[in-house]
Amino acid sequence: MALSKSPYRGTRDFFPKEMRLRNFIFQKMADVSELFSYEPYDGPLLEEVDLYRAKSGEELINEQIYSFTDRGDREVAIRPEMTPTLARMVAQIHREVTKPIRMYAIPNLMRYEKPQRGRLREFWQYNADIFGAGQNGEIEILQLAISLMKSFGATHEHFEILVNDRRFVDFVFGGLIGLEQGPTKKLYKLVDAKNKMAAEKFSAEVRTITGDEEKAKIFEQFVSLKTIQDIKTFADTFSSRTLTTSEVSITNHLKPLYDIFEKLESQGLTEYVKFDPAIVRGLDYYTGLVFEIFDKNPENRRAIAGGGAYANLLQIFNEPALEGMGMGLGEVPLTDFLTTHKLLPDFTKADVDYLVAYLVSDAETSAFELAAKLREKNKKVELFFGEAKPKKIFTYSEKKNFKFICFIGDEELKNGEVKIKDLVNKTESTIKLKDI
Amino acid sequence: MALSKSPYRGTRDFFPKEMRLRNFIFQKMADVSELFSYEPYDGPLLEEVDLYRAKSGEELINEQIYSFTDRGDREVAIRPEMTPTLARMVAQIHREVTKPIRMYAIPNLMRYEKPQRGRLREFWQYNADIFGAGQNGEIEILQLAISLMKSFGATHEHFEILVNDRRFVDFVFGGLIGLEQGPTKKLYKLVDAKNKMAAEKFSAEVRTITGDEEKAKIFEQFVSLKTIQDIKTFADTFSSRTLTTSEVSITNHLKPLYDIFEKLESQGLTEYVKFDPAIVRGLDYYTGLVFEIFDKNPENRRAIAGGGAYANLLQIFNEPALEGMGMGLGEVPLTDFLTTHKLLPDFTKADVDYLVAYLVSDAETSAFELAAKLREKNKKVELFFGEAKPKKIFTYSEKKNFKFICFIGDEELKNGEVKIKDLVNKTESTIKLKDI
Repeated sequence: MALSKSPYRGTRDFFPKEMRLRNFIFQKMADVSELFSYEPYDGPLLEEVDLYRAKSGEELINEQIYSFTDRGDREVAIRPEMTPTLARMVAQIHREVTKPIRMYAIPNLMRYEKPQRGRLREFWQYNADIFGAGQNGEIEILQLAISLMKSFGATHEHFEILVNDRRFVDFVFGGLIGLEQGPTKKLYKLVDAKNKMAAEKFSAEVRTITGDEEKAKIFEQFVSLKTIQDIKTFADTFSSRTLTTSEVSITNHLKPLYDIFEKLESQGLTEYVKFDPAIVRGLDYYTGLVFEIFDKNPENRRAIAGGGAYANLLQIFNEPALEGMGMGLGEVPLTDFLTTHKLLPDFTKADVDYLVAYLVSDAETSAFELAAKLREKNKKVELFFGEAKPKKIFTYSEKKNFKFICFIGDEELKNGEVKIKDLVNKTESTIKLKDI
Repeated sequence: MALSKSPYRGTRDFFPKEMRLRNFIFQKMADVSELFSYEPYDGPLLEEVDLYRAKSGEELINEQIYSFTDRGDREVAIRPEMTPTLARMVAQIHREVTKPIRMYAIPNLMRYEKPQRGRLREFWQYNADIFGAGQNGEIEILQLAISLMKSFGATHEHFEILVNDRRFVDFVFGGLIGLEQGPTKKLYKLVDAKNKMAAEKFSAEVRTITGDEEKAKIFEQFVSLKTIQDIKTFADTFSSRTLTTSEVSITNHLKPLYDIFEKLESQGLTEYVKFDPAIVRGLDYYTGLVFEIFDKNPENRRAIAGGGAYANLLQIFNEPALEGMGMGLGEVPLTDFLTTHKLLPDFTKADVDYLVAYLVSDAETSAFELAAKLREKNKKVELFFGEAKPKKIFTYSEKKNFKFICFIGDEELKNGEVKIKDLVNKTESTIKLKDI
């Protein structure tokens, strides 16, 4: 029986056209990271499952992870996200290196998902993180995200960054509404799903979870907040009454969000960044600012990237707390975004400097020699194998973006020459082989 | 219990220094491939195990492959080599594209091995293949291999390419010695292991496998051949007598090897390439020229790369035969080679253009602004967070290769200026912020 020629479900074959596109995107990611002095890293493809048990959400472990037992009886998994690996690596070095630590990576990840638009089983994800930098680090990651989007030619007309703060969410869910952890998690999920739900259904679920009309009203007020000014007004309503949880205070839970927006304002970034109460980010490790980047096109309304601040990723390694902020940006939704907005160059044809061809087989050795000489001068050269008629060579030359065609025929061979056709300027010249 | 901070056995954490080295090596691989007009590709991390069953050696499947059953009951494996994926991809397109097809990739692969020098469980491998180009393709792959090695500064004093031809080996094992497939495979393994064995043991094993003193002698003659002239003399001895297998002939089985060396000679490549009867390559799919690149340093005597010509990789997909030639080069033995010969730059420190620092906290916004401006001019900029004294900033500046330090103090802030220290030329200047 013949084997299947298709790739494994949810993964892709990258033929040259797709691979040039991928290289283009990865190069921008690396370049912009280096502009911000972030340093490259990578970790192993496999990690022990315990690492993810300790840090990733339950959904990831139970439903999405590719895990198996190796020949040495270790339970391992193909990495479904990069943050746990980064935490493991930073735990090794953070005592010796000067903070902040700025790092970026573009790993391939796997998750067992139902393949659909913008979602595949194997994908690459750009990751950038800064450790030990406080609020300036949070600002910098947002700047980096904006610069990365702009490097592809995207503007604030194409995308927006929606931010929220877990401390503010805690203030509302814990302090104002007075919920325990269980119902709080349910509210998180409900907020996440809000835009995919009918208003009545949402309203009913709020009441089921909070179990109280007054609490439900506070929650509904919260999800309707649109600006920092809205939040201030909202918070003022409650500042006079005693909050449910004693440690909740406006200073600890709201000031960071106010400060961030002040800094964003002073740096002219508010045309990109907006407050949105619906951004909560499912992962457990976020403790401060959280954000997602969205396509503004309503047809392609999904997160291209997301991230947030964490107080303590190193705890699971028994290391002292080290705050940080990170982001992840998927190459699949980014490509969808860039395609939708026609921001991608055409990668159909390869760019090659010279096509070297020979019209008589006796010239083969000379053609090999010429190609070698041009390559020594750092020119991209394709050697057309076998003697061929000019017509055939010209026809082939249209398959790639060649700049020049070099011909060696009987005449040229006899005189130690090569005829060079400049395809860009439509000129022709004959040069001595030894002069190249 | 705290989790382990170490990577999974046989895999590596790439901290910035190691990652810069890896990027340097991969960039050279891509650059040299493009000089030869090879186009980039990649395939999935996972393939169905059947693909490897059909094409890879038994050792790989039984002992080295990372395979498991996915949640949909498919038997899948993390790719242990790239050639089967490439064959699957070429099977999809070969009818539509103009030949030759030139492709390269730098995939990460996994094999369950006992980690040791030059061998890890997760590693990257450069792959280059050409399909449908005949003997010129074989020459081109050898040229490409040589150019790649030379791009790192290696010369024929550092490395050599040892070649053989499966057709010649068949001529000897099948035609001259008259062995069946079983003993032939054993002889392959024996040849492979020759240099790690005592002469007496080798001699005894030859006699066990061939079961005949005369045959053993022919085999011993074969393994002592050193040049193409030796082969010609050796072959002449037998040309007068009837060969065991009728289809074996000097024209079919030796001429390709003679021709290759003639071409290598005319292109001045014989200072890099030598005939070696001990190169046979274990994999089943090779049918013509085979080669390995070796470090000439006797301390580091292992193959850095290997490859060969195959007549028909597409058969398992029920596609018509398409000849090709490919090579694989491991990043682990290559790095060992480059390290041994001191051919690697120092990647300890990151290269950054500007370190932007502020001496008073009021200057923070200006510093952020300056950094943003410099980045718009494509400069790599690190922002030093928090007000700091010059001494602290200078001390920090030694951690990376900065070209300039920008300071904004009280004075500069008042005048809308920045003081720039040129660390390379040891000069200092003050510039208006708005003039940058």
